Amino acid sequence: VVGKAGPLPRRYAAIGDDVGVLPSRSGNLVIKVDMLVEGTDVPPGMTYRQAARKAVAMCVSDFASKGVKPDSFLLSLGLERGVTQAQMDEIGEGVRDAERLWKLHLVGGDTNESRELTIDCAMVGFAKRIVPRDGARPGDFLVVTDSFGYPPAGLRILAGKAKAERKFAERAKASVLEPTPSLRVGLALREYLTSAMDSSDGLARSLHTLARASGVGFRVESLPEGEGVARFARENGLDQESLVLAGGEEYVIVGTLRPQAFEEAARAARKAGGMLLKIGKAIESNRVELVSSRGTRRVEDEGWTHLG
Amino acid sequence: VVGKAGPLPRRYAAIGDDVGVLPSRSGNLVIKVDMLVEGTDVPPGMTYRQAARKAVAMCVSDFASKGVKPDSFLLSLGLERGVTQAQMDEIGEGVRDAERLWKLHLVGGDTNESRELTIDCAMVGFAKRIVPRDGARPGDFLVVTDSFGYPPAGLRILAGKAKAERKFAERAKASVLEPTPSLRVGLALREYLTSAMDSSDGLARSLHTLARASGVGFRVESLPEGEGVARFARENGLDQESLVLAGGEEYVIVGTLRPQAFEEAARAARKAGGMLLKIGKAIESNRVELVSSRGTRRVEDEGWTHLG
Repeated sequence: VVGKAGPLPRRYAAIGDDVGVLPSRSGNLVIKVDMLVEGTDVPPGMTYRQAARKAVAMCVSDFASKGVKPDSFLLSLGLERGVTQAQMDEIGEGVRDAERLWKLHLVGGDTNESRELTIDCAMVGFAKRIVPRDGARPGDFLVVTDSFGYPPAGLRILAGKAKAERKFAERAKASVLEPTPSLRVGLALREYLTSAMDSSDGLARSLHTLARASGVGFRVESLPEGEGVARFARENGLDQESLVLAGGEEYVIVGTLRPQAFEEAARAARKAGGMLLKIGKAIESNRVELVSSRGTRRVEDEGWTHLG
Repeated sequence: VVGKAGPLPRRYAAIGDDVGVLPSRSGNLVIKVDMLVEGTDVPPGMTYRQAARKAVAMCVSDFASKGVKPDSFLLSLGLERGVTQAQMDEIGEGVRDAERLWKLHLVGGDTNESRELTIDCAMVGFAKRIVPRDGARPGDFLVVTDSFGYPPAGLRILAGKAKAERKFAERAKASVLEPTPSLRVGLALREYLTSAMDSSDGLARSLHTLARASGVGFRVESLPEGEGVARFARENGLDQESLVLAGGEEYVIVGTLRPQAFEEAARAARKAGGMLLKIGKAIESNRVELVSSRGTRRVEDEGWTHLG
């Protein structure tokens, strides 16, 4: 896996965030590209419709975590030679799903032949301010907008590598096949968050990235574990903490805010149809640690490196 | 080949042009994506550095034809599993070549693993007005900003399917490996052009597209044939007119302007380091025709459908 450390940008590195920001007279233009590639991003059982929706969701997730309302997006498609009209129609359906879900407009695109399904989404929006990665200060509360563990469980279920009772399995699979980052919650939280990013590479990696960018450490006091994840882990011989910390494909916002802002922010998140969980705090340290009944241990910077 | 008629956008279709345009308080945001895929866009002999540069050139060409100065671009990369550091460095060099050539800034990106080299470029700029596709009127002069025929010749030479004397071969290969749309010429012409688009799918296709969009026909009175193209065609048993009309991979502006604006526009193009050739005129018709010593014949809407 090539990972994030590709040959790309000096200037992007200088921006060093999830989205590019270009000053313009009407506020900052915020822009982001994210490429979905069949071999790494499309698990067994995902339809073309869901793949198209996911390609857009991947960008929406970053906009949500930055507190920026996206305006429009463009899609570049790479389609296999044998693609059928039905599959192309499905992609169109997935695009419309995304447009409706997040109130966005597709404004352009490009269609090509390629060796595997490839959908690159370019998304734009305007914003006065974006929630940065580097604003966490010691003492800030560490918060997340949802629980963790469903996508890694769902991926294992879809791949036939794990089993679960029906209801959990449905929820876990849906989290993978139809990821639904909450833009409303992200926008509701933008005034409160001192730092944030999404967790598409897993909670542990997000914590380390925010910690490094902000020059702080984090003490995680309660793992934001999804309901049923512990049982799923037990029944399938998996490590429960790993599922929560190093799962990935999770489109949850991980961020920080001042302690005195927490109650109001949590109300705002609920009003937007979501929630806000306090899971720990920023500390003066360069470590990310997890405090549990078994004591304190270091959380490694282990992340999601794509499917399989 | 999937072609342009993919599953994409109703709204994009409504915009119906080479770039998406979003109104914003500081003028229109102009945005465009174009995906380079190894199997269809990277001919034999093209290096990673040249491929990266070409991916950006493909977007620059559309901006040039619309008379819009691009500001920045983002790249999504799909790299094969076995990609080497040297190849990644080459991509970085190609990006810097493009930044220097067209005075652009790379402001973001995404790196992925894929089954073939894929480089999707998303480019943005701001403009009060863009040169449309639908502004040609009967009587307008039909103009191009360069001669045609080098890229299709170069592709055949690179593929080992044709031969040419050294100087012509070098020029033809360079036109394929390092396409250099002239942004300066495009910007210099924006006040004069009543309609325009680039010719990346070939001259014939551009003529038909502009004709349909504007509700006019075109009479081509002189083919803008590159020097040495006739000889190359003769020596390799190829049809000379086809090379010029249906070649493709050509990043030349094809457009129209009022007859009285031609002289001033041609001066502006020369001042910008390029040229402007009158090749015919817009007519009241729905046909594109070619007038030559052999009489008048219809130009088919035959286009470039990718390499090989």
